[in-house]
Amino acid sequence: MAKTDGCIFCQIASGAIAAPLVFEDEVCLAFLDHRPIFPGHTLLIPKQHYETLADLPETLIQPMFANAQWLERAIEAALQADGTFVAINNRVSQSIPHLHVHIVPRRRKDGLRGFFWPRQTYKDPDEMENIRKNLSETVMRLRSSA
Amino acid sequence: MAKTDGCIFCQIASGAIAAPLVFEDEVCLAFLDHRPIFPGHTLLIPKQHYETLADLPETLIQPMFANAQWLERAIEAALQADGTFVAINNRVSQSIPHLHVHIVPRRRKDGLRGFFWPRQTYKDPDEMENIRKNLSETVMRLRSSA
Repeated sequence: MAKTDGCIFCQIASGAIAAPLVFEDEVCLAFLDHRPIFPGHTLLIPKQHYETLADLPETLIQPMFANAQWLERAIEAALQADGTFVAINNRVSQSIPHLHVHIVPRRRKDGLRGFFWPRQTYKDPDEMENIRKNLSETVMRLRSSA
Repeated sequence: MAKTDGCIFCQIASGAIAAPLVFEDEVCLAFLDHRPIFPGHTLLIPKQHYETLADLPETLIQPMFANAQWLERAIEAALQADGTFVAINNRVSQSIPHLHVHIVPRRRKDGLRGFFWPRQTYKDPDEMENIRKNLSETVMRLRSSA
């Protein structure tokens, strides 16, 4: 599979490259991010190469996100975190094009609050309604053609 | 259930408060965020009240994240997004204590890159190894006692 040849996460999954492993089962692997947002920042990946969340086969959704839950609980328990940030960058801001779920310990007043979620508002109710309608119809169309 | 009495997302789920709905099935609801990171920013919630991802019952993982996939695909298709940002704030930075998955359209050069992921490094290999070992043992302990 040429696509995965140069993929560093595929090489971690195959054991060709060492990584600070946190967890492994038949389909997933979790390891520490080398450049953490906060220490304990963990990456959870499927061993098979899929680029984005949308590409993940339906059969892997349950094992993948059940593992995300276990990692979230473990990070809170082991690192006395107040909470976690769980995130996936699909294509944009995605450094490695192999699906990875970031699970990051958070603490109150950890400094991320102010700039973490820059927000805007809709220009007018029509703009919002047009987008809502478009999205809603597109979800139904995609699901019915699956 | 007193806990959910004042919960705005429970009130949206019950129909008591109107929201710009994008999608609904038996267990989930998706609607536009009123203060989007970018227009089309959607929130996906379980209709039942669970505070964090760790609280979501195992039986709801599959429907919840299969719907996240559909919404991701729809946002890319309907809004010509280059990608998406999928994220959950558990407790810290979580404005409404009812689990919600943010699904946000992203575009190359949309301005979020520079400050979105402030990173640090581990002080030394020992710090990283201690955290890795602690997390790894905690995941195994939690899973085996489940």
